Amino acid sequence: MRRQVLSLIVENNSGVVSHISGLFSRRAFSMDSFTAGHTADPRFTRVIIVVNGDERELDQIKKQLAKLEDVVDITELTPNESVCRELMLVKIKADEQSRQPIITATLEIFHGHIRDAAPDSLIVEITGDQGKLDAFLTILSEYEILELARTGLTGLTRGTKDVKNF
Amino acid sequence: MRRQVLSLIVENNSGVVSHISGLFSRRAFSMDSFTAGHTADPRFTRVIIVVNGDERELDQIKKQLAKLEDVVDITELTPNESVCRELMLVKIKADEQSRQPIITATLEIFHGHIRDAAPDSLIVEITGDQGKLDAFLTILSEYEILELARTGLTGLTRGTKDVKNF
Repeated sequence: MRRQVLSLIVENNSGVVSHISGLFSRRAFSMDSFTAGHTADPRFTRVIIVVNGDERELDQIKKQLAKLEDVVDITELTPNESVCRELMLVKIKADEQSRQPIITATLEIFHGHIRDAAPDSLIVEITGDQGKLDAFLTILSEYEILELARTGLTGLTRGTKDVKNF
Repeated sequence: MRRQVLSLIVENNSGVVSHISGLFSRRAFSMDSFTAGHTADPRFTRVIIVVNGDERELDQIKKQLAKLEDVVDITELTPNESVCRELMLVKIKADEQSRQPIITATLEIFHGHIRDAAPDSLIVEITGDQGKLDAFLTILSEYEILELARTGLTGLTRGTKDVKNF
């Protein structure tokens, strides 16, 4: 099993997310995360898909995606040659007495931010690769996580070797 | 026209993204952004959809989404009662002579980070609400943006009034 991060440039139409996700659904491939957002060109959307599978499955997914009419470009983002980041918001149950260790870990160790402070909860924002976000959740294991929102991974290749101007 | 941010809790199966996006596609509703990521409960995925429309359309979208079998919960995230954030990576054409103003704006004004520095490009990371990210792109207008990746918006309601433990 290997984790593959695929960056797709797709035409900006209302059917494109449906075409991509339909392909995963029909073949029962499971996505670990999915993001779709603007690019530098209003005609196109960047879709980043994280999938886990064996080499044969990953190869199949890539080939099937490349066949879709809306898909203009498909690039694999590898750890060494790309910057991959995710944003996570965590609402943690913590009153004024119990919250100091969470605030310290957020600000000083994970370089995150406190985005909301209510009498019995905090919302913390952390950005990083998936490993860093998972590590932050591990140190929270003695607290109650009330709600969690992760954007899913996005990324770009480093440098200008592979630039396709999207 | 109004912008609506919907937070859905959906069952974690391979068809769910397809069901949601199929609904948008069939009705030609256009999504401004779409993110799907983990929640605190492995059985469920949080999907955040940003849509623009008139009141009648937005009401229709909400009602149709609520009817989908995989959708467990649907909440509208309003600006005052929620924290909504997005992460953006921008690859900018800039050599060592021209990059200093970009670095200053990134670090000192937008509190962002430089994630890659190649001889002729930089990758900058900015997080914020959509307005902040758009403002950063505006100040870059005299530079060439080589590539852009945005996660799309994610968010949580403030405080503990509406907590549903996902």
